[in-house]
Amino acid sequence: MSTLTAVVDDLVAANRILAGLGVLDGFGHVSVRHPDRADRFLLARSLAPELVTRDDIMTFDMASTPQDGDKRTPYLERFIHGEIFIQRPDVISIVHSHAATVVPFAASAVPLKPIYHMSSFLRTGAPVFEIREKFGMTDMLIRNNAQGAALAEKLGDNSAVLLRGHGYCAVGGSIPEAVFRAYYAQVNADLQQRAIALGGRVTYLEDEEARLYDETNRGVLGRPWGLWKAKFAPKD
Amino acid sequence: MSTLTAVVDDLVAANRILAGLGVLDGFGHVSVRHPDRADRFLLARSLAPELVTRDDIMTFDMASTPQDGDKRTPYLERFIHGEIFIQRPDVISIVHSHAATVVPFAASAVPLKPIYHMSSFLRTGAPVFEIREKFGMTDMLIRNNAQGAALAEKLGDNSAVLLRGHGYCAVGGSIPEAVFRAYYAQVNADLQQRAIALGGRVTYLEDEEARLYDETNRGVLGRPWGLWKAKFAPKD
Amino acid sequence: MSTLTAVVDDLVAANRILAGLGVLDGFGHVSVRHPDRADRFLLARSLAPELVTRDDIMTFDMASTPQDGDKRTPYLERFIHGEIFIQRPDVISIVHSHAATVVPFAASAVPLKPIYHMSSFLRTGAPVFEIREKFGMTDMLIRNNAQGAALAEKLGDNSAVLLRGHGYCAVGGSIPEAVFRAYYAQVNADLQQRAIALGGRVTYLEDEEARLYDETNRGVLGRPWGLWKAKFAPKD
Amino acid sequence: MSTLTAVVDDLVAANRILAGLGVLDGFGHVSVRHPDRADRFLLARSLAPELVTRDDIMTFDMASTPQDGDKRTPYLERFIHGEIFIQRPDVISIVHSHAATVVPFAASAVPLKPIYHMSSFLRTGAPVFEIREKFGMTDMLIRNNAQGAALAEKLGDNSAVLLRGHGYCAVGGSIPEAVFRAYYAQVNADLQQRAIALGGRVTYLEDEEARLYDETNRGVLGRPWGLWKAKFAPKD
Repeated sequence: MSTLTAVVDDLVAANRILAGLGVLDGFGHVSVRHPDRADRFLLARSLAPELVTRDDIMTFDMASTPQDGDKRTPYLERFIHGEIFIQRPDVISIVHSHAATVVPFAASAVPLKPIYHMSSFLRTGAPVFEIREKFGMTDMLIRNNAQGAALAEKLGDNSAVLLRGHGYCAVGGSIPEAVFRAYYAQVNADLQQRAIALGGRVTYLEDEEARLYDETNRGVLGRPWGLWKAKFAPKD
Repeated sequence: MSTLTAVVDDLVAANRILAGLGVLDGFGHVSVRHPDRADRFLLARSLAPELVTRDDIMTFDMASTPQDGDKRTPYLERFIHGEIFIQRPDVISIVHSHAATVVPFAASAVPLKPIYHMSSFLRTGAPVFEIREKFGMTDMLIRNNAQGAALAEKLGDNSAVLLRGHGYCAVGGSIPEAVFRAYYAQVNADLQQRAIALGGRVTYLEDEEARLYDETNRGVLGRPWGLWKAKFAPKD
Repeated sequence: MSTLTAVVDDLVAANRILAGLGVLDGFGHVSVRHPDRADRFLLARSLAPELVTRDDIMTFDMASTPQDGDKRTPYLERFIHGEIFIQRPDVISIVHSHAATVVPFAASAVPLKPIYHMSSFLRTGAPVFEIREKFGMTDMLIRNNAQGAALAEKLGDNSAVLLRGHGYCAVGGSIPEAVFRAYYAQVNADLQQRAIALGGRVTYLEDEEARLYDETNRGVLGRPWGLWKAKFAPKD
Repeated sequence: MSTLTAVVDDLVAANRILAGLGVLDGFGHVSVRHPDRADRFLLARSLAPELVTRDDIMTFDMASTPQDGDKRTPYLERFIHGEIFIQRPDVISIVHSHAATVVPFAASAVPLKPIYHMSSFLRTGAPVFEIREKFGMTDMLIRNNAQGAALAEKLGDNSAVLLRGHGYCAVGGSIPEAVFRAYYAQVNADLQQRAIALGGRVTYLEDEEARLYDETNRGVLGRPWGLWKAKFAPKD
């Protein structure tokens, strides 16, 4: 099996896993940088992630333009992916989601912070992208390269960025890492909300604690990934 | 396949989808305007939506009277549908639900507002229908044309109306749009509640943002609808 | 099929339905008055409701003593059933549950109240039984007739009673009605909690509204019951 | 079937049950003291609990060192188990989890307390282990015997200990008891949170009530355990 075939299989698995875990519903998407060309990325055609198969994967350049004369309908928000891949050479995979527990933080003045080690990737924060600032009244979507670039700039060196009134993006150095972060951002949002609702003082992870765990996590990431593939990836 | 057959199939699918998504349980219903006659609508006989098949669909006139001598038991609250279809010629499909997250807003002085683009259809608000105002003490149901007309009046030009101590209705220009709105009203209610519980300032969508997305949504509605049909519609 | 066979089948269905709906887990139970003898009731042997079959049903007299020399282990708390059946001749079926959303109200000074028509049976309230009052320090269980009688007295003419630090009981004039009330008590507790958390004024059902719907409900109860049987009852 | 075989089967069942109940996801683990040697314990190799089979069980000594030349990768946090088994001769089984509802209490100044009889094992409290106190900045994991010993010391004579920014451990005198406690710690956390959010005074179990039920519980523990095995244990 070529590297490309393996990466496409992992991307299909990621689509199904994110649907299975409730991170994506009919909307949202996940991309991966092309394994042979750093200036290309792979992303499904406009389709619900739970239905994505190998044949639905399209190739894009960094302007988020479909390649190889592919005329199928792409996601309106493909520009999220191209612009983040440009500004973040370390990023290999990107998830964009509207997951229920995170959206409230995207609309709130209360910042998302890591309440346990699993969400250590939030240690530098998850800044909120306010599309009104540069683009005024919009339909909230990231519809062009200028909007994608502004979002990528707001992401900066963080692992996640929230989109006010919309959702969030999580990025990683591999497909499993991006999926892991998209999932645990959602879990952390629920846990943080519960902790706040208890009414007592809440202790978050120190930056150093989170930095140390984030390193550890790379070594154990295969464990949930293996479970998720076994449960949700296509069986063929 | 005739238009009518296709519409009936979509109405059956809508019943199953709304049950599958948890918008409807043993109660609630979904209707569609007759594709050939604007003065008729289609609605299942009194049956849990999850069990509805083609043969359970009945035809009603705008007084919500069963047609063609159909003697089967109709829903007690069929008057919701007839009266909204009369007052809103633009409406093609109506969902009535008791979904868990929305009922608290129907009982609360806190208004339901769009916290993200998916619920842009709430931009003009979801007024609360207080049945006590005109009808005093009732069993809370919409049992006749006068009550249906009062509810339709409260709905006005909005896409959803809440019924105090009861539930809500969502309307749309197509079956997929009504189902979409019924589902995302439920999701928005949960997200808004979570945002409020965080205790910080909450930013809702501006009217213009929501208006712009609502247009966009018509173009992408087929995506969740396709997923939902694949997951929940009868397979025959 | 004799009446007794039909009632036993419904009692088995009720066990499975309550497990399927999450009202009962490994604990809790549901009983029915014997259809031929008002001084006998039927209840499963000590077994998780999800596993109950026809052969697991035992017969008890009103002292909650097993009949017919049945030596199988009964539930420790069978006295709940006998004593309520004694004090409430109108009651045909009783559910005892630890369902998650209701227990907080059983521990709280905030009373459970009907937030929508489905929980109209809460209109006269759901009093909290404080076992400490008469029995001091116990293991919280209703272990004998004296404790069962005190609980039945606290239930009074209501449709539900909460047990502090323990759970609740819902009663009905038929198996479907008791199951319905046990389920919607759980739903109401969740909705009421959400409404309170919104922070605005909450409007509950007036007694007259709830009384009127409770009558209506008897006519439509067959709808959810039919759905629940189709989904959860044994197929043989 | 030898005692060891039966214990291994129960340990595999416990892995699957804890995954099925949502107490464990891709992370977390459950151990049992060796039935023939009090100075050995059994624990799966580093693998998601939902995937664990008999062949994945490894044997450790009380220093948490793999025995019999077993070269497979063990869990990083195996030291939790060895050190608790050393300090608590009464403990036969230990669950370590990151379950969602408990983590907020591990990060909060609000203590976890028994809100109903099912969580009577919390009667003496669930102390919070703050790893910073003795070990400063870490990756939050229990990576060696010193950290395991400090955690075991914090556990003391209680049935559960919370790990700040991490999760919790529940211990029991048998596999079913440890699983029961891990599960109901999670349920109690959710119920307690809901009770606090209601805003009224909350009554917790008195120590004596909880002590009495904890004894009772040993007699009825087989009921949920039987249900859980029927639902989640491997069928072979």
